Amino acid sequence: VPAYKLVVAYEGTDFVGWQRQASGTSIQGLLEQALGDLDGRPVAVVGAGRTDAGVHALGQTASCVIGRDIDAETLARAVNARLPPSVRVISAALASPRFHARFSARSKTYRYQIWNGDVMHPLLRRVAWHAPGPLAFAVMDQAARVLEGRHDFAAFQSAGGDVVTTERELTSSKVSDLSCEALTSCGGRLIVYEAVGDGFLRHMVRAIAGSLVEVGRGRRSPDWLREVLASRARDLAGPTLPAHGLVLVSVRYDDDLAAPC
Amino acid sequence: VPAYKLVVAYEGTDFVGWQRQASGTSIQGLLEQALGDLDGRPVAVVGAGRTDAGVHALGQTASCVIGRDIDAETLARAVNARLPPSVRVISAALASPRFHARFSARSKTYRYQIWNGDVMHPLLRRVAWHAPGPLAFAVMDQAARVLEGRHDFAAFQSAGGDVVTTERELTSSKVSDLSCEALTSCGGRLIVYEAVGDGFLRHMVRAIAGSLVEVGRGRRSPDWLREVLASRARDLAGPTLPAHGLVLVSVRYDDDLAAPC
Repeated sequence: VPAYKLVVAYEGTDFVGWQRQASGTSIQGLLEQALGDLDGRPVAVVGAGRTDAGVHALGQTASCVIGRDIDAETLARAVNARLPPSVRVISAALASPRFHARFSARSKTYRYQIWNGDVMHPLLRRVAWHAPGPLAFAVMDQAARVLEGRHDFAAFQSAGGDVVTTERELTSSKVSDLSCEALTSCGGRLIVYEAVGDGFLRHMVRAIAGSLVEVGRGRRSPDWLREVLASRARDLAGPTLPAHGLVLVSVRYDDDLAAPC
Repeated sequence: VPAYKLVVAYEGTDFVGWQRQASGTSIQGLLEQALGDLDGRPVAVVGAGRTDAGVHALGQTASCVIGRDIDAETLARAVNARLPPSVRVISAALASPRFHARFSARSKTYRYQIWNGDVMHPLLRRVAWHAPGPLAFAVMDQAARVLEGRHDFAAFQSAGGDVVTTERELTSSKVSDLSCEALTSCGGRLIVYEAVGDGFLRHMVRAIAGSLVEVGRGRRSPDWLREVLASRARDLAGPTLPAHGLVLVSVRYDDDLAAPC
């Protein structure tokens, strides 16, 4: 039976998150229903990252096995026709039967988007968190780099995670100004924290971003992040920022048979 | 009595347009209500451009006269507190009593945003029109330049306009790829038509953009736009594209006492 790899983008605003829940609409649930309709029997969909309610994705990746042999492009079109416009299959490809979106993932890229201006940008309000006032992004970047490498990230984990170890490796951790002509309006800029890692603890990116904002506002020095990391104590880090600023940008695989980009 | 200049940004999705209507919520109506609440009596708000239902703005400009003498920054904050998050006063400034947002305007900049990719970008679906398939934007740009200068734009005007003359001057008319890191996801790009002019006829930007897409798809040559323009016949031009791709970017004034950007 054919296995598929799907790259999925969504605006998370109106969903309970990636994962099926007892109530509410999930992205996983929508995909399973659309694929089940096409296959004429229940289909299980696995996602690389179980994004929380309100979190968005540009390149979430999912795997599934389907009974019928459907051309991948046709499958993507047929699934999209059954999804709301806030969820789109960007691409679909036949995958190895061994391909598992979660366990085969080698690294993921997340972004935390911050609108830094007196007034929130009305076209970005669903996908960026609003931080008015001065924000020194170069100093935030300096602090973010401290987290690169393999570390115990317990200080940036929310209660409720079910992990064996809190060690993770960030191959990249940086802050940059992603303002661009298409987005910019008077008096604001888009400051983005981007992390590439082999895995992420519960709310880890949002807690790191919250800590970096403390640094950017001058309340803490860049070296403070080193102390927080070493402490492994969640109460030392900054606040967990709201879900709606977080975006799962992409997922990488070793055996990327049909990498879409 | 003090006159104010307000720069206003909004996502037009849920509104009947800038202008007050017999029913439905308008941006003008929201501003008049918020300012009236503050001033304790009815306030009339004039906008530089009467954007249609679904059209967005980054830099719509409005003028109003208020009985109470309120500091401009305080006014902006108080008005924003009374508006939905999809409408924001980006900046406010005291203006000359002669300042009239519509009649004092020297030029306006509009953009028509096109997502060119197989699948619509779910985070851009409210602010860009979806055009799948090949789209030669360099050829579209070549065609767009033909419209620069003073011309009779009758061929690009929808019925229902109430203008004395259909002559307008475009000081800039161009197509570019405004894709950027923050927006891009696999398999698509943001192609934008931008026009700067002293005035625009009803649906003019949307009809020009629709004609440019005909050129970009290879159905027409860039020189065809010259013929359409010369004909002054609306039925020769391309289709009027949907409202949700249009953005009023900025308005310029000679006497710009408090230009925000």
